[in-house]
Amino acid sequence: MQQYFIKGKATQSVQLTDKETIKHMFQVMRLADEAEVVLVFDDGIKRLARVTNSLTHQLEVVKELPDQVELPVQVTIASGFPKADKLDVVAQKATELGASAIWGYPADWSVVKWDGKKLAKKEDKLAKIVRGAAEQSKRNLVPEVMLFEQKAIFLDQLEHFDRVFIAYEETAKARELSSLARALRTVRATEKLLFIFGPEGGISPEEIKDFEARGAIKVGLGPRIMRTETAPLYALSAVSYALELATED
Amino acid sequence: MQQYFIKGKATQSVQLTDKETIKHMFQVMRLADEAEVVLVFDDGIKRLARVTNSLTHQLEVVKELPDQVELPVQVTIASGFPKADKLDVVAQKATELGASAIWGYPADWSVVKWDGKKLAKKEDKLAKIVRGAAEQSKRNLVPEVMLFEQKAIFLDQLEHFDRVFIAYEETAKARELSSLARALRTVRATEKLLFIFGPEGGISPEEIKDFEARGAIKVGLGPRIMRTETAPLYALSAVSYALELATED
Repeated sequence: MQQYFIKGKATQSVQLTDKETIKHMFQVMRLADEAEVVLVFDDGIKRLARVTNSLTHQLEVVKELPDQVELPVQVTIASGFPKADKLDVVAQKATELGASAIWGYPADWSVVKWDGKKLAKKEDKLAKIVRGAAEQSKRNLVPEVMLFEQKAIFLDQLEHFDRVFIAYEETAKARELSSLARALRTVRATEKLLFIFGPEGGISPEEIKDFEARGAIKVGLGPRIMRTETAPLYALSAVSYALELATED
Repeated sequence: MQQYFIKGKATQSVQLTDKETIKHMFQVMRLADEAEVVLVFDDGIKRLARVTNSLTHQLEVVKELPDQVELPVQVTIASGFPKADKLDVVAQKATELGASAIWGYPADWSVVKWDGKKLAKKEDKLAKIVRGAAEQSKRNLVPEVMLFEQKAIFLDQLEHFDRVFIAYEETAKARELSSLARALRTVRATEKLLFIFGPEGGISPEEIKDFEARGAIKVGLGPRIMRTETAPLYALSAVSYALELATED
C-alpha cells in the first residue's frame, strides 16, 4: 500500500496541504474516496487512513499499524562531497538501507567546490530523493539531509555521536575480528553512529587526525576497493546484518 | 597502481593485443617506458610489470604480488531482468562488492522482454562494465556475466551451487538468527552460493516453488523494502561482513 509522510503531529482527520503529496495521491495514483493509504506523521508511527474526500484532499485515520522497520541504532552517513550526482545515489540507497541522516562535507580532496547557494539547491534535491525513497522503502522516518559548507561546523558535530567510524583501508589481520565487527558487538540499541567517507581521492592525513582527535576510529570495510558511493551502502548493510539478522541473545 | 586483466596464461614477456587495454594504457594513462602496472592473467595472481616498449605495447613481468582480495566463497548474483539500465548498476556495484558472477534471467514478472540479439548486446555492455569495475576495485578475477534467454536453462544451473538463496520478505522473529545468518554460520570456504533476486514486481509464487524444488531457501534481508538493484548489494555486503570482518576462530 502506498505510504506518505505528513509533516506535523498525528490527527484523526487529515487535511492535506503539501502539493507534492496531493499531486502524487490524486493525479499520479488517482486515489478515489474510500481508497486506503498509510500515513506517517512526525511520531514515526504508521497509520492506515482512508480518503474521505478526494476533491478537497481529506483523509481519516483508521488505525495505527505496528510496522516498525528502523534500524536499532541511528546511523548517519557523511560523505566528502563527491563528483557529479553521486550524492544522489548515496542518498537514495542509504535511505533504503536504513540511514537516519545523510550528510555531505567539503573534504580536502573534494574536487567539486560548492558555495552556499549551490548547496541549498543540492540539499533540496537530495531531500526530495530521500523522501521518495523513504516512502518507497516504507521507512518510519525521513532521513535528515544536511550539506555542510564549512568543515569546521561538520567537525563540531562529531561529539554528538556515541561512535564515529572513518571508512579507511585497514589491513585485516587473519582470523581476528575487524575493528567494525568488534565495535558492532558492543553497540547498544539507540546509540548514534556516524560513518565518515572520503570523496573519490580519499580522506587526507590531516582529516584523519582531525577526526581521530574527536574520538573517531578507522574501520576497514573488506579487502576490495570500493567507489566512494558504494562504501556507505556496505557500511549500512553490515550494520543491518550485524544488528538485525545475526543477533541472538 | 593501475591494474589490467590480460586474457590467457601468465608469461614473463607480455605482448599486448587487446585494443581496449592498449588504448587505456598508452592513450588514456599515457604510460611511458619503465612505467609500472599490475597485470592479472587467468590464474588470478597479481603481477607487477614494467613497460619495456610503449610503442610496440610490450611489458615484462617483474614479480608476483601477494595481494588476494576475493571473498572466501564464490557468490553468484542472479537478477530477474529489471527495467532500463538497472542491471548496469547491479553489475558495477556487485563487482566492487566481490561477486564471482552476475547473471540475469527472464522472471515471470519482468516487464522487459529481451530476445537473443538484445541479450547478446546487453551481455557485451555488462562485460565491459564488470571488467572496468574489477580493475578499479583491484579484483583478482573478472566476474562472469551471463544473461539467460530461457528460464529453464537458468533453473538447470541451480544444482551446481552448494547453497541457493531466494531474497524474499521474511518475517524476522525477534531475537533469533535470520535464515541468512544461520546459513552463513555454517558456510565453508570455497562453497558456491547463489542469490536469486526478483525484478521490480518481485518473484512469482510459481518461481518460488521452482527454486525451492531445487533446494533454494528463502532469506530475508532486513525489514526495509529495497529496490531490486539494491538488494544484491546488501547480500554481498552481508556475506563479506560475515565471512571477512566478523570471523574469528
